Amino acid sequence: MARGEDALARLTALVQADLEATNRAIVERMHSPVALIPQLAAHLVAAGGKRLRPLLTLAAARLCGYPAGGPRHVALAACVEFIHTATLLHDDVVDESALRRGQASANALFGNKASVLVGDFLFARAFQLMVEDGSLEVLRILSAASATIAEGEVLQLVTQNDLSTTEAQYLEVIEGKTAALFAAATRVGAVVADRPPREAEALDAYGRNLGIAFQLVDDALDYAAAQEALGKTVGDDFREGKITLPILVAFDRGGEPDRAFWRRTMEERAQEQADLAHAQALIARHDGIGETIRRAERYGAAALAALETFPRSEFRQALADVVEFCVSRAR
Amino acid sequence: MARGEDALARLTALVQADLEATNRAIVERMHSPVALIPQLAAHLVAAGGKRLRPLLTLAAARLCGYPAGGPRHVALAACVEFIHTATLLHDDVVDESALRRGQASANALFGNKASVLVGDFLFARAFQLMVEDGSLEVLRILSAASATIAEGEVLQLVTQNDLSTTEAQYLEVIEGKTAALFAAATRVGAVVADRPPREAEALDAYGRNLGIAFQLVDDALDYAAAQEALGKTVGDDFREGKITLPILVAFDRGGEPDRAFWRRTMEERAQEQADLAHAQALIARHDGIGETIRRAERYGAAALAALETFPRSEFRQALADVVEFCVSRAR
Repeated sequence: MARGEDALARLTALVQADLEATNRAIVERMHSPVALIPQLAAHLVAAGGKRLRPLLTLAAARLCGYPAGGPRHVALAACVEFIHTATLLHDDVVDESALRRGQASANALFGNKASVLVGDFLFARAFQLMVEDGSLEVLRILSAASATIAEGEVLQLVTQNDLSTTEAQYLEVIEGKTAALFAAATRVGAVVADRPPREAEALDAYGRNLGIAFQLVDDALDYAAAQEALGKTVGDDFREGKITLPILVAFDRGGEPDRAFWRRTMEERAQEQADLAHAQALIARHDGIGETIRRAERYGAAALAALETFPRSEFRQALADVVEFCVSRAR
Repeated sequence: MARGEDALARLTALVQADLEATNRAIVERMHSPVALIPQLAAHLVAAGGKRLRPLLTLAAARLCGYPAGGPRHVALAACVEFIHTATLLHDDVVDESALRRGQASANALFGNKASVLVGDFLFARAFQLMVEDGSLEVLRILSAASATIAEGEVLQLVTQNDLSTTEAQYLEVIEGKTAALFAAATRVGAVVADRPPREAEALDAYGRNLGIAFQLVDDALDYAAAQEALGKTVGDDFREGKITLPILVAFDRGGEPDRAFWRRTMEERAQEQADLAHAQALIARHDGIGETIRRAERYGAAALAALETFPRSEFRQALADVVEFCVSRAR
């Protein structure tokens, strides 16, 4: 087992009972008399995600002294997973991705319509869970995060196939589409434990930096990893014309022939069989993966620094190890 | 001007200033630094909808004694319109409908991806507006309605092209996809005015029955009205294989040749040029439109009965007239 996976296993073990309660809550609350809803949702849930975001909520709450057994952090962990699953379902529609976690995507199996609508259901159900929890502060955090996620996804769409996208815009995209939910997932831990704003902000900073690091690594992996290790098709981003940091680096550092290649494949979308391999070679030549990973490490370091607000504990150590998990996936 | 449109004009005049405030809130709060979001949202907003649902929220609040000028009913009216617009955007993706309110749909202009994501943004923004309002009861009502809308839409998808759909299932679909938001839109009027549960329930019953009547008439119009009167393509439901009451009536009352026609066109989706006209003829022969409108009138009567909970006022009269507006569209 790689170091990173080991870290995630330790975190999982630390909140095992609460994670199982979260899984039960997820199954229970995705129920609907309309049978297709739990069927389709179960397809994603049963796909055995890492439950990274719910784990973050559980661990952040415990870090802040919230007791094991819940119930609030368990309900909100389920809620965070519902929002995440809803965005995956809508992202499948958007990206026409054929594989998700190595399985046929819900979209491919059930169609675009069902994915959009079941995503809507899960999103609404997440808000029902928050209302049951009863904290307006939690509702504020997660409704703001939801709006920011949508903004990030739209910005990604707008910058797709556009090589004039700046690195700042790229970072805005990943901060929206990925880091906003990480930040909200950890921040609500401080809210349920009734901790002061300073700790809520520290957990927000931890989650936000972790999320950016996570997405940077994900974007590196799309050009670097074997499909088996990643659990999804390598080259998805390339085929979809997503402008990610490895490409921005290779484009920026490349000469005119390189740039012509990127313009043809990304902007004109005229891709041929051998293009992905050539893209990977150009990215390797200009150290696009290395640059992206080093950036991820810097955000990872910022996430670790934010944890210093809290006294040492097994939860602080576990959350620190998650940073290692996220960054080390690319090694 | 037809009697119905007259009724809507009177209601609009009655809450004119608050409706204008609602329109300003809509424009203001659909803002985002991601320019495509207000651009796409404006396409729907500028399309000049009747603002029926926000009007219902404003009038219901005033009926309950909430003062003109708001601000709560104005903010919630905007919120209801955001949820409605989000469902329209997602419905466009779903149904591939070419026309909406007589204009090219946002989907056709901006693509599926953008419609899904901007819908998500508006939905999240609606929840942010509710959080600013600060009432957990309002949040409970509108998050539950949002889940029910998604359930209704999924059930509609599941029963599509399926002639074994029962009338009860059809009613469940329209109660979910349409009436749930009408009910929530009127119910929150009682909440902002701090009125007792009896009045909240009466407004819920009013909105729910009105919504069912509204959708029944809409489904009748899809086979009955000229495109100009409806502002959308006649025969949309037929082409999409949506099972609506006019078809259920014609199928139920028809002989074997009729049923073979419906099976071919609706279940096997093998439609030819002249089929819509033949479908309209079969529906006319079996009084499918008449049956549907009579059903709508019964729900309309139930909506009127629910208003009896309240003392006479210009707002009660205006809300009663809206029933007339909804039902008379088909005459």
